[in-house]
Amino acid sequence: MNPDILRERENATFNTDLLTNILDGDQEKTRRRREIESLVISDPDFQQEDPNFLSRSERYDAAVRKSAQMILKLREYGISDPEEIYFYKSVYRGINHEALGVHYVMFVPMLQSQGDAQQRKKWLPLVESFKVLGTYAQTEIGHGTFIRGLETTATYDPATQEFVMNSPTISSIKWWPGGLGKTSNHAVVLAQLHTQGTCHGLHAFIVPIRSMSTHIPLPGVTVGDIGPKFGFDEVDNGYLKLDNVRIPRENMLMKYAKVEADGTYHKPPSSKLTYGTMVFIRSMIVGESARALSKACTIAIRYSAVRHQSELRPGEPEPQILDYQTQQYKLFPLLATAYAFHFVGQYMRSTYHRITGDINQGDFSELPELHATSAGLKAFTTWVANAGIEVCRMACGGHGYSHASSLPGIYVTFTPTCTYEGENTVMMLQTARYLMKSYKQAMSGQQLSGMVSYLNEAQQQRQMQAQPVSSSRLATTATAAAASVHLSDLASLVEAYKLRAAKLVEVAAKSLQGELQKSLSQEDAWNNSSIDLVRASDAHCHYVVVKLFVAKLEEVGEAAVHAALSTLAQLYALHGLAQHSGDFLQAGLLTVPQLSSVSQRIKSLLAEVRTNAVALVDAFDYRDEILNSSLGRYDGNVYEHMFEWARKSPLNRTEVHPSYHKYLKPLQSKL
Amino acid sequence: MNPDILRERENATFNTDLLTNILDGDQEKTRRRREIESLVISDPDFQQEDPNFLSRSERYDAAVRKSAQMILKLREYGISDPEEIYFYKSVYRGINHEALGVHYVMFVPMLQSQGDAQQRKKWLPLVESFKVLGTYAQTEIGHGTFIRGLETTATYDPATQEFVMNSPTISSIKWWPGGLGKTSNHAVVLAQLHTQGTCHGLHAFIVPIRSMSTHIPLPGVTVGDIGPKFGFDEVDNGYLKLDNVRIPRENMLMKYAKVEADGTYHKPPSSKLTYGTMVFIRSMIVGESARALSKACTIAIRYSAVRHQSELRPGEPEPQILDYQTQQYKLFPLLATAYAFHFVGQYMRSTYHRITGDINQGDFSELPELHATSAGLKAFTTWVANAGIEVCRMACGGHGYSHASSLPGIYVTFTPTCTYEGENTVMMLQTARYLMKSYKQAMSGQQLSGMVSYLNEAQQQRQMQAQPVSSSRLATTATAAAASVHLSDLASLVEAYKLRAAKLVEVAAKSLQGELQKSLSQEDAWNNSSIDLVRASDAHCHYVVVKLFVAKLEEVGEAAVHAALSTLAQLYALHGLAQHSGDFLQAGLLTVPQLSSVSQRIKSLLAEVRTNAVALVDAFDYRDEILNSSLGRYDGNVYEHMFEWARKSPLNRTEVHPSYHKYLKPLQSKL
Repeated sequence: MNPDILRERENATFNTDLLTNILDGDQEKTRRRREIESLVISDPDFQQEDPNFLSRSERYDAAVRKSAQMILKLREYGISDPEEIYFYKSVYRGINHEALGVHYVMFVPMLQSQGDAQQRKKWLPLVESFKVLGTYAQTEIGHGTFIRGLETTATYDPATQEFVMNSPTISSIKWWPGGLGKTSNHAVVLAQLHTQGTCHGLHAFIVPIRSMSTHIPLPGVTVGDIGPKFGFDEVDNGYLKLDNVRIPRENMLMKYAKVEADGTYHKPPSSKLTYGTMVFIRSMIVGESARALSKACTIAIRYSAVRHQSELRPGEPEPQILDYQTQQYKLFPLLATAYAFHFVGQYMRSTYHRITGDINQGDFSELPELHATSAGLKAFTTWVANAGIEVCRMACGGHGYSHASSLPGIYVTFTPTCTYEGENTVMMLQTARYLMKSYKQAMSGQQLSGMVSYLNEAQQQRQMQAQPVSSSRLATTATAAAASVHLSDLASLVEAYKLRAAKLVEVAAKSLQGELQKSLSQEDAWNNSSIDLVRASDAHCHYVVVKLFVAKLEEVGEAAVHAALSTLAQLYALHGLAQHSGDFLQAGLLTVPQLSSVSQRIKSLLAEVRTNAVALVDAFDYRDEILNSSLGRYDGNVYEHMFEWARKSPLNRTEVHPSYHKYLKPLQSKL
Repeated sequence: MNPDILRERENATFNTDLLTNILDGDQEKTRRRREIESLVISDPDFQQEDPNFLSRSERYDAAVRKSAQMILKLREYGISDPEEIYFYKSVYRGINHEALGVHYVMFVPMLQSQGDAQQRKKWLPLVESFKVLGTYAQTEIGHGTFIRGLETTATYDPATQEFVMNSPTISSIKWWPGGLGKTSNHAVVLAQLHTQGTCHGLHAFIVPIRSMSTHIPLPGVTVGDIGPKFGFDEVDNGYLKLDNVRIPRENMLMKYAKVEADGTYHKPPSSKLTYGTMVFIRSMIVGESARALSKACTIAIRYSAVRHQSELRPGEPEPQILDYQTQQYKLFPLLATAYAFHFVGQYMRSTYHRITGDINQGDFSELPELHATSAGLKAFTTWVANAGIEVCRMACGGHGYSHASSLPGIYVTFTPTCTYEGENTVMMLQTARYLMKSYKQAMSGQQLSGMVSYLNEAQQQRQMQAQPVSSSRLATTATAAAASVHLSDLASLVEAYKLRAAKLVEVAAKSLQGELQKSLSQEDAWNNSSIDLVRASDAHCHYVVVKLFVAKLEEVGEAAVHAALSTLAQLYALHGLAQHSGDFLQAGLLTVPQLSSVSQRIKSLLAEVRTNAVALVDAFDYRDEILNSSLGRYDGNVYEHMFEWARKSPLNRTEVHPSYHKYLKPLQSKL
């Protein structure tokens, strides 16, 4: 064990295991997670070459091998609880994605939820025995978020009782589905249904794309891999072009909409039925933000505890880089953010389950807010974590660029969350739509519930200050309001974030009204206000995160853990306040003289976090085999491990690279 | 040609060629650059497989091949002007780095500047005929920026008149030098010189590392590739461990310091002699920031002009995504930034040459400012461009993740500039040191010149307002100051940035004083103020950029081009003001009521830029062969090209991937 990192642990003021239990849920959950992780790590099949040393084709090969192994192992061990399967797979996969990911996450659920009884009876056994390997083909090369724009067609031919599937244009080629390129032999394809001369919009069809015996693409099917990407090397995201591919009528998923043998169309009773999955996935992504950022923080903070650099005081040894205030200012607010997002992730998961329970009992009342919150928080947390991972990477200096650090891998694996499952700006605007609706309701005196209820309070305050406000009066109001904000009081900070959100929601609403008064259409007014709308959503989400972090503290009984988390919560809130000081000044929640107190307070909090920094990342409890990072090793023996890793690099397989004989030697003889 | 992008070009209000000439310097420079680019592009040897489809070893192989080819071609064409060589190479290399980059940039210059006459006579012919392939080994696995901490030793043995070179610890292994892993047979090694029992600090030694005939590593030398990184796949960054490697006394570079045959040491006359190269490279990086960001903007803006998505108005066709205000708000401030950085790059280059001329005539007066400015602007521009490239990538939705877009490649190739040639935070603190010194001088009444002269003005203002300022008085002062700021007047915006910088320099200086009053040491006070110091440098650099952008406008005669650039300059200045509104409010340069005017003005500027957006990126004049991006193609035929590209992907070489037969087929038979 490196002596620096040992000393850090000795100096910690709290017991890391207690904090780990809070992150897992409870002590038993920690125990079981560790048990499953050990199961994987002690498995000889888990031993493998570092994926960073493999070519793309080799990485895909390894991912398929692991997917096949996991199916057998999970059955062997009898692991069936979804959360336990998740633990198992996330260790087993390592940094790789699963080759059959879309099969599990989209293809099977589509059959289960959209297939009728007969279809389920036919397909589910094929799916469970992996005779049918499926993917879900929605996005086209020219069409993403706006799915009504999809161009693929399914035209019913009553003569043969078949659908004729076509990709009529280049832009209609299906593009991006995971597992489509090489792995799958079937796809659920979303296409515009045409029957009896009418287009009935998008429906889902099971399309066989490769032979179930030879795996060779079927006639009329052009299918392949979309080529190398930023990360996701091991996934065969694919393209699919259909030329008059005929499928039987029974291959349309018919639980809701139906096409009869003669081509008569019956529309589905309701179109809101896929709402739930989307909300669920977005809620889960909030947790992914926390995990990715906490891994990056673990690596950067442990490394900063063992790395020595420069002179702080002349003649003294080079200090740990964690002692530099600039390094603390980069990393500790991100550490606080990782904790905040963990707790928000827990909240989203439990809220999702609670509301799903309500929905099953016919109560849909909380669904709109859950939908809006999951969209906004998905965008808010992924953007912040995405940028934060890169800050952690660059805080490790040169070594952060090496794949030995694992940081580039964490980044490229995480960054797509900003785009998939709802592009972030589109998500922020969905939340804004909910905020604008809520604002309007509050203005009309309607009592709001849930996370937006602050709009009622803001409206009441507004009524009390109904007279027009001059610039000088505003300054006075600002001072008056700010007088009640205490920078070291968490409740007061939550209040400040709330009022900032209320202010920015109001600014956006007024911008919208202003544009409408220029007699623009609703749509143009919306577009011309969208910068303000995104800002409002951002402030709303920021408030929700601060509020949930502070609320979580109330559940923490153990004093030392409470103190450590409370420091982080204050740092999170004050750092955000400093970053957005313009907003808080504008809303009259802060005064100019207070700014230097904010800055002083942040510096003291950094010093407080410094003591526990290593313990706080230890509590995330990522085993070395999971982090797979030379810089983030628990024992701190960074350099030995980097050297050992580098020697295995593929370029070192021969002492002299062939290019020497091919190009350099001949060059020398020519000159 | 895609009709959307054609229409964009038809609607432009200015002649792009005129703007291209301004970016190149003049019309003749544009002509010559295009001529050289055509020379490369029409060369059959330039045709090559997309590097994205190659393994790391293949990419390295291709880089070596190209380096060898270029040497012969440049001689054949008689291209010898450094700028023309730069054009030629940057097209020929494409996204790849040069295998012999460090040979040219560091090894040869070290021999030239640090070798004595005899050494130059011996080594330069070997270097020019590439018999000696060299690299420069400074950084060690445990030691980066703080070079005094390097551990490698060179111990003189008078018995044999040799230096004995050693890597005494794991942390002393040389790490990162480009071309060290596989390409080079010699390295200039920086090591602690020991002779006659005394350590004389760092000196440079020519160390043979591989046989000049077989290329096999020499006895005592452990050398290899450091393994895969975030980008730079084609570069063999290497490690070097030396175990009692003996080199003749004449291999120490002896132009300045000397060791005599008996071991007597003579120290160099001055240690400031390598200052120039460092400043030069940092100045050049400012230009690299502009180029990388302008490439990313070209791709994202052209793609946004041809991509259609969603509905703005019900019933109308899907609009170009460039019509969304949120998309404009992401991309246009970055476009403005790319222009700003281009002009700052031009300024840095010409200032460097001017001051080098002065230095050659013995006038060192401007060197400290150039040193401080190049450090700060290197950090400022690389951080902004780094984040900006990712914004551009993510503004392209899913396709931004594909290597077909070229955006991931631009990012990974650019991001190391934040770390190499001086880690950015360290650079900002170097600038801060200069600012603090200048502030002190201004406070003591000394007249400053150059970019920091505003500190004199701020000091004069401070003297006029010598009485203590209460919070309410501050508000009044703020309003008074703000009354003189005109949001649509560029000169007034430059002034505002200047006063913000002055304010933040003052805040940092006072923080430093405050810490010193707590009777901390100079060093601890500095560390405890470093957040404020970095902020001050950032504000100073921001001011310099705004000032230089606005100054450049004065040189532009053509009215239509002037108008288009002026819109960008305003957008750049106002966007920064909105992003840092807290600072401007704090400094009393802006009032709260003005904030909504800022926001309105930004929206009108976005609409103005919209008209010329495609023409403004066309003016950067990157040929398709240079961008190598399906999304950024000049003709806008994005989807056809992506599909064509994907079909060549290595995973598509066989219809059925071997993993099917290895894992999936056997799995099916087991279940």
